[in-house]
Amino acid sequence: MAIQTVPVSQSALPLVQRLSKDHDLVLKTFRMLIADLCQQFGGGHPGGAIGMAAIGVALWRYVMRYAPHTPDYFNRDRFVLSNGHTCLFQYTFLHLTGYKAMTFEQLKSYHSDRVDALCPGHPEIEHEGIEVTTGPLGQGIANAVGLAIANKNLSATFNRPGYDVVSNHTWCMIGDACLQEGVGLEAISFAGHLKLNNLTVIYDNNQITCDGSVDLTNTEDVNAKMRACGWDVIDVNDGCYDIEALVRALEQARASQDKPTFINIRTVIGLGSSVEGKAAAHGAAFGVDNVGEMKKANGFNPDEHFVIGDTVRGFFEDLPARGEKLVQEWNQLVELYTAQYPELGAEFQRRMRGELPANWKELIPTSFPEKPTASRASSGLVFNPLAQNVPTFMVGTADLSPSVNMIWKDKVDFQHPDLRTNCNINGNYSGRYIHYGIREHAMAAISNGLAAYAPNTIVPVTSSFFMFYLYAAPAVRMGALQHLQVIHVATHDSIGMGEDGPTHQPIELAALYRAMPNLLYIRPGDSNETAGAWIAAIEAKHTSTIISTSRHALPQLKQTRRDGVALGAYVLEEDSDAKVTIIGVGAELSFALEVAQRLKETRGIAARVISFPCQRLFEQQPIEYKRSVLQRHSGTPAVVIEPYAPNGWERYADAGISIRRFGQSLPGKVAYKFFGYDTDVMTNKVAGYLDQLAGGQALKGEFADL
Amino acid sequence: MAIQTVPVSQSALPLVQRLSKDHDLVLKTFRMLIADLCQQFGGGHPGGAIGMAAIGVALWRYVMRYAPHTPDYFNRDRFVLSNGHTCLFQYTFLHLTGYKAMTFEQLKSYHSDRVDALCPGHPEIEHEGIEVTTGPLGQGIANAVGLAIANKNLSATFNRPGYDVVSNHTWCMIGDACLQEGVGLEAISFAGHLKLNNLTVIYDNNQITCDGSVDLTNTEDVNAKMRACGWDVIDVNDGCYDIEALVRALEQARASQDKPTFINIRTVIGLGSSVEGKAAAHGAAFGVDNVGEMKKANGFNPDEHFVIGDTVRGFFEDLPARGEKLVQEWNQLVELYTAQYPELGAEFQRRMRGELPANWKELIPTSFPEKPTASRASSGLVFNPLAQNVPTFMVGTADLSPSVNMIWKDKVDFQHPDLRTNCNINGNYSGRYIHYGIREHAMAAISNGLAAYAPNTIVPVTSSFFMFYLYAAPAVRMGALQHLQVIHVATHDSIGMGEDGPTHQPIELAALYRAMPNLLYIRPGDSNETAGAWIAAIEAKHTSTIISTSRHALPQLKQTRRDGVALGAYVLEEDSDAKVTIIGVGAELSFALEVAQRLKETRGIAARVISFPCQRLFEQQPIEYKRSVLQRHSGTPAVVIEPYAPNGWERYADAGISIRRFGQSLPGKVAYKFFGYDTDVMTNKVAGYLDQLAGGQALKGEFADL
Repeated sequence: MAIQTVPVSQSALPLVQRLSKDHDLVLKTFRMLIADLCQQFGGGHPGGAIGMAAIGVALWRYVMRYAPHTPDYFNRDRFVLSNGHTCLFQYTFLHLTGYKAMTFEQLKSYHSDRVDALCPGHPEIEHEGIEVTTGPLGQGIANAVGLAIANKNLSATFNRPGYDVVSNHTWCMIGDACLQEGVGLEAISFAGHLKLNNLTVIYDNNQITCDGSVDLTNTEDVNAKMRACGWDVIDVNDGCYDIEALVRALEQARASQDKPTFINIRTVIGLGSSVEGKAAAHGAAFGVDNVGEMKKANGFNPDEHFVIGDTVRGFFEDLPARGEKLVQEWNQLVELYTAQYPELGAEFQRRMRGELPANWKELIPTSFPEKPTASRASSGLVFNPLAQNVPTFMVGTADLSPSVNMIWKDKVDFQHPDLRTNCNINGNYSGRYIHYGIREHAMAAISNGLAAYAPNTIVPVTSSFFMFYLYAAPAVRMGALQHLQVIHVATHDSIGMGEDGPTHQPIELAALYRAMPNLLYIRPGDSNETAGAWIAAIEAKHTSTIISTSRHALPQLKQTRRDGVALGAYVLEEDSDAKVTIIGVGAELSFALEVAQRLKETRGIAARVISFPCQRLFEQQPIEYKRSVLQRHSGTPAVVIEPYAPNGWERYADAGISIRRFGQSLPGKVAYKFFGYDTDVMTNKVAGYLDQLAGGQALKGEFADL
Repeated sequence: MAIQTVPVSQSALPLVQRLSKDHDLVLKTFRMLIADLCQQFGGGHPGGAIGMAAIGVALWRYVMRYAPHTPDYFNRDRFVLSNGHTCLFQYTFLHLTGYKAMTFEQLKSYHSDRVDALCPGHPEIEHEGIEVTTGPLGQGIANAVGLAIANKNLSATFNRPGYDVVSNHTWCMIGDACLQEGVGLEAISFAGHLKLNNLTVIYDNNQITCDGSVDLTNTEDVNAKMRACGWDVIDVNDGCYDIEALVRALEQARASQDKPTFINIRTVIGLGSSVEGKAAAHGAAFGVDNVGEMKKANGFNPDEHFVIGDTVRGFFEDLPARGEKLVQEWNQLVELYTAQYPELGAEFQRRMRGELPANWKELIPTSFPEKPTASRASSGLVFNPLAQNVPTFMVGTADLSPSVNMIWKDKVDFQHPDLRTNCNINGNYSGRYIHYGIREHAMAAISNGLAAYAPNTIVPVTSSFFMFYLYAAPAVRMGALQHLQVIHVATHDSIGMGEDGPTHQPIELAALYRAMPNLLYIRPGDSNETAGAWIAAIEAKHTSTIISTSRHALPQLKQTRRDGVALGAYVLEEDSDAKVTIIGVGAELSFALEVAQRLKETRGIAARVISFPCQRLFEQQPIEYKRSVLQRHSGTPAVVIEPYAPNGWERYADAGISIRRFGQSLPGKVAYKFFGYDTDVMTNKVAGYLDQLAGGQALKGEFADL
């Protein structure tokens, strides 16, 4: 078979007609293979993958532009399986289309006990051909919106007439969940607003969820809703067999001029099985007998398993070569582009390598005003120059621009240019400030997509109140899990935010983020530490970070160290006679210094003071350093001051001045006093605790809530 | 003025016309008052409240049925301010309409440092006239859906021809956020599906958010979207002044036969101020000069503040009496009803008192099958008989019916009866099993509304995988904050859930819920403890609970105690020679027993074993009990076994066999082994730790990650 390359402008329909004689066998083979793969381990999700077979053929054989032997080819189309539990669908096409890592043995390891398996229960970004880790429903579609935004921004930044060096499309497969989950609905609404015509969502409309018919829970007019959200809608009625109609729809979607496209494809879950069209086809193997019957009905030998005949192999065999041709053509294009636009070409190459400009740290101020400054303001002072000068950063907020201080001089919004005419909104696709709307969850999930487009080519920054990172938490988690560098800027991070009250005071939220793997939760104590927090976040190229800042002004402390943040904790004030160590954190760091001073002045008790902005960074230090900072092994008790739930501080402290109830609506300073964060009150508590330890009423090794 | 009572069937429009001469003054007075209240403290959110003035008059003066002097009148209309930051809107109408607690002094305490203020920065359920605490955007509208479901269910259960003892309407005020936040969109979609014609959402369409024009982030066709979701839509073009049009729209909404109603009301934020129609009107006071100018322009004296003249007082003065008449009429109705239907009447009274049948505990099995049983299955064994026999419970799932085991014999779904004809779905409004769809966040937020309808009249139960309670977390938090009894049943709670992999393995999630105030996070270890967990949850009438269960079978342990769960932790195996305490938790409780036995058999090391299902319940015990269980004060080190992040266990243990990375996609048993949860491996770790302690390489007081 001759190598086929279908340029974007050229339809694959002639090829579809030429190869259509093999479609029936390809579909049957695929379906029997899925049934076998699930049956082998007596589990998995066969129904969806079987129903989506023809969609997969249309995508991987005809429409998508990718290179199985160069899986990270920069300009590849991105495919997201947002209904990640149907992962076998993708794994099997990766195998058939020639991805080298996805050997037949690997494919057959689905649900096995192989620790090095490439077929985990949901697709994982670490493996060839997988763009993002999916599984928690609704995340993938939001990631796809991020991938499409990344494409738009890079296209607008780098493409020049005749040189479309960034021109890929994003395809996202979804089930019913992405149309029900809030994060999916936020992302859909936002993609429509942005007119992302480079995004196609493919709806596997099989009318079935775990509980049964989708009518149990959703009877809305999905197409009308998508149109209202600004999407083009295409219906495909026979999604199980009509590959030609599917290719037509997908090509129409790629050609869309000004809207994202929603393809509503009617399929049948578990087609051909005894549970066809039923919820039972969703999440369990069909059973040996049923799989045998299916094979007989389809002309296969029930005693043979995992059969992929030569015709089927042949049907896909030219795809690696087609892919390499795409890669070569693109490489040539980039070469010519770089010759024509040397500076832009060099910048493009640097971005693709995921590198920042060598001088990025020099953009951060070396000193700050001496006046008390809210750390949210410090955050702006530190980062605005970086955002202004380093186009790697795309910065967004969930409708809190006036609060988060992330707007830099002359920033341009990421918007469709039409908005200028229609709504007097200035922006374009090369803009890098994203107004996400009041959509915290989608903001974080879209940012994961921005980061996943290519490693560190875009570093997304999100911003909101810290409390609302509970809304965003499932996506923050997915970013950390995928080792994506996403920086979340979270202000109003303590009871000091005041009047908004307990609904906005994040008493227990830090406990989540301090426990979350591969996530740096950093509370800087003043401007200097805020600079340190940003440096740590920017240097953590495979880790997500939350920089957690205050609404209210904090004193600039002469003892803080910018480079101390990277150590997680460091000694702020040492005293060899210390009877107690006071641990200060973030917005309340100055309280620790004040209590230490008051202890000395009023009680003659010497105290050491530690600044402890980030538990995870501290954990990464050598044991000797940790002991030298904490000094607990020498018997000095430590008291932590933080208006949060104490959970987790017990590792570093013997007692805590913490909060174990929800907050209170009061002006910030009054709220601190109400909860006992008053220098005299805290000093009395520490002194009292030391007395109790001496007297045996408090026991060493038993955490004391002061 | 004569006392006016407007029956549901009778329009308030004649009254509107009669009183319309005072409308202008009432609106102006309200607006000046809001400007003054914010100016007084130099903060707050004046713009929205000012724009919504006429809506408030239409609601409180003309349409809503409530009783200011009997604020908890059972059949009152429910009003939810989902855009909670405009709280002054509600506080002011509570004052004007005669709620006794909301004195003028209290109203003027908005944003003050009064600890007993009734005017916190967002409405709080604890105060008269407030149905739910709002603030985090999107929650209120979902709560309103819950309030409407509660009404539907109670109506269908208790009403009889001529005796509509439950007949209230639910009104929910929203801003743009509830149309953007995912939880709001989930709730909107679900309310449309359920055809909740007793629910009206009132959209303050002022086209402004914090960042500026709503066009920055949302350009969809909102009305078309709402219609696609199954809602009736009414437009009101002059929402700032046209009280008659507003009353017409609200009355049309109340009369809707088969759909919830969305009233899209065009208003102007900060009307009459110098920042009218601008984002600057949203979240800051207008400034002294501007407030003065506003007053002059409206014919008020700029030097007078907080002016409510006699005409305005008079405009609202009959409302308490009107309310009491409503209450009397309803009391008479219930009396007649109880005479006519004595059993039903008694049941209705019991439900209104928030009482369970006296024999509820007897419905729980006293023993369980001896075979290993997944605790999610145990949860069904314990609770299904209760759900079947006690109509107080409304039980739902986010599309995981086959996994969560919450379906009881002959359960009836909560659905609109039309679905039977249209979609072959059986259910009606008296059904108590709710298929929420794949909408975890709305499920929890709607459940808060179910619980808030009246104290403990309905006890909502939600269910899903534990991991997806991260999606639901903001609503779980709001339930705990409001002291609502909501029981969340979370299965697949450890790495033992296996193949679904790290996206579904909740390594760090328990740290959040153990830190969250007023929330019981309980991990039972076998069927017996699962019974104890349910008893604790049901007895916690002012607390939310998560019962966290396993996917996989757990051995039935002879040492467990049902009543031990209420203590949080208790001794499973005592040994006066113990050199170590092993703490076991939930699905891995048996591991603790196995390790203790293996230590003794292979090393001659005696060990005690503690079962520790709930940290918060343990914290509530007296110090003597805690010490007797932990025995750490006597120097016995404790090691906790749990495949979660250890954060927080440092309070109770000296070392942990924990997980500090994300999980791995492997079959459950293999996943346990992969992470070192193998009896021999764990035994070696514990013994090694004891050696290190003895040798000084490990230090007491320094938590060891084994």
